[in-house]
Amino acid sequence: MSSISGLEEVVEDEINSFFESSPPLKNMDKIIETLNRFTELNSSSQGGNGQGRRIVCVTSGGTTVPLEQRCVRYIDNFSSGNRGAASTENFVKAGYAVIFLYRRGTCQPYCRSLPDDPFLECFEFPDKTNIQVHTSHLEAVKSAVMDQQTAIAEGRLLKLPFSTIYEYLQMLRLIATGLKDVGPCSMFYLAAAVSDFYVPWNSMTEHKIESGSGPLDIRLAQVPKMLSVLRTIWAPKAFCISFKLETDSKILIEKATKALGKYKVHAVVANELSSRKEQVVVVSSSGNVVVRCDSGEPESIVEDNLIRLIVDRHSTYIKESHT
Amino acid sequence: MSSISGLEEVVEDEINSFFESSPPLKNMDKIIETLNRFTELNSSSQGGNGQGRRIVCVTSGGTTVPLEQRCVRYIDNFSSGNRGAASTENFVKAGYAVIFLYRRGTCQPYCRSLPDDPFLECFEFPDKTNIQVHTSHLEAVKSAVMDQQTAIAEGRLLKLPFSTIYEYLQMLRLIATGLKDVGPCSMFYLAAAVSDFYVPWNSMTEHKIESGSGPLDIRLAQVPKMLSVLRTIWAPKAFCISFKLETDSKILIEKATKALGKYKVHAVVANELSSRKEQVVVVSSSGNVVVRCDSGEPESIVEDNLIRLIVDRHSTYIKESHT
Repeated sequence: MSSISGLEEVVEDEINSFFESSPPLKNMDKIIETLNRFTELNSSSQGGNGQGRRIVCVTSGGTTVPLEQRCVRYIDNFSSGNRGAASTENFVKAGYAVIFLYRRGTCQPYCRSLPDDPFLECFEFPDKTNIQVHTSHLEAVKSAVMDQQTAIAEGRLLKLPFSTIYEYLQMLRLIATGLKDVGPCSMFYLAAAVSDFYVPWNSMTEHKIESGSGPLDIRLAQVPKMLSVLRTIWAPKAFCISFKLETDSKILIEKATKALGKYKVHAVVANELSSRKEQVVVVSSSGNVVVRCDSGEPESIVEDNLIRLIVDRHSTYIKESHT
Repeated sequence: MSSISGLEEVVEDEINSFFESSPPLKNMDKIIETLNRFTELNSSSQGGNGQGRRIVCVTSGGTTVPLEQRCVRYIDNFSSGNRGAASTENFVKAGYAVIFLYRRGTCQPYCRSLPDDPFLECFEFPDKTNIQVHTSHLEAVKSAVMDQQTAIAEGRLLKLPFSTIYEYLQMLRLIATGLKDVGPCSMFYLAAAVSDFYVPWNSMTEHKIESGSGPLDIRLAQVPKMLSVLRTIWAPKAFCISFKLETDSKILIEKATKALGKYKVHAVVANELSSRKEQVVVVSSSGNVVVRCDSGEPESIVEDNLIRLIVDRHSTYIKESHT
């Protein structure tokens, strides 16, 4: 039994009850205002073919699932945010405007080449007022400061942080509905590691779980699969790329192919935890393409070639949408 | 029934089996070498009263508990690391050498006043080779660069990162046994948010837990209480401060007092999640002392007064140990 939207009613119910029970997003009005300004600016800017500039929402980093309402403990999903940050830089370079929806504290665009402890390693004060960058880190610092500031000042990069699964999904919904009018020129590039399981807010303990009385049993519910809603209701005309991360290479392509069919996204980027920096497989209805970094070029990263491929596919999609 | 060490046998068994089943620490030899050099340097440096310099191990940030061996998901403990970072600065100022055992990615000493996104907000390049710090952030950047580099260059600050509960406890054991000879002049200031529950490594699934088949049940075992071992075996002569964080102020002091008796630490710093930046209560056998930041001084932080009190108590402890 299907409802008008094409979503099964049971999925719709699950999703509605997820949002109804979520703690409300802080600063929602502010976020909407910022998003609208960013979208308007870029829709009226000149992109290729007399259209507005293309806009991509890149999600990055892992979402957390609180185990207590006044949160001391939570379940987290491993993700450095490197993929999202590197992809963002490449999308900007390709002429896109990027909404970077990222987990607080994860890797930022243009900052990938900074060392772990940049204030300890990059700078020195030869006297009390003048700061200097060590030559070995000059390019990394320049990119983090100049390139990043330029992208933001030109209205090509908007950074929005989240921590919990509740914040992430509410913000994704705001962005998706806000981009509806951009139609086929908008893209969702969903690289964030989104929790599959959560503790429903209403059934969560208010205070810190007490230790000292034997083992702890936790029952986690499944997070409703929002990809279906994104594709069918929130932004049905947007180009949509999802990600599949597995640790077991034997089941990776099978699971990515299954996700492609189930959520009707335009491609699934399949990556295995241990080799994810060297190669990914783009799974789509036109076949599977292995994407690697360029061998022999130490500066080359897999995202250079991945974004080139995705942008090509997006161009084809836009052309086909207008015919 | 007690064993020779004063620890109950059942606790000793639990602890041994925890360490035996832990994944081995990477770079263990390197860490031991660095620790030994740091300890020797500071033991032979001149502190007060003809003794070597006092050494404190400050632990900071939360430990993670992996839910899968090839870790995609984990349980985390909330902690920004602000307390540990601020305390470290104050200990250095008070003449101590500090081993800062911190969670990767959490707040660093001398970096508390930096904005969230320092490369975006603190700097500009007026031309392509010269970097400038915005006047409003000059003091924050100077502290992060100059004060931090000075403390490290003088051998007064050693930073050691951890992520998992396995890394944390193995490193704490190395530090404690390495400081044994420093005796009463050593201190443990245990501000890290250590997991109470974990999934024993041997019973953990190797691959990513699959979603898609209903709710997920997780059974977590209790982490053995290492404070007892630290006090009785690893470093019995060290001055030892532990922390108690609760979200429910009604049970806070009661639980801190219980911990004081159970682990025989020299003081427990009790803090409540919502007011922890304004005040803490130092619970010890000589009574409870409320410590606040100085009202009317906007720069004052609670750690200024807290470390002053702890250092006084440590001085008394050292004097009494030598009589």
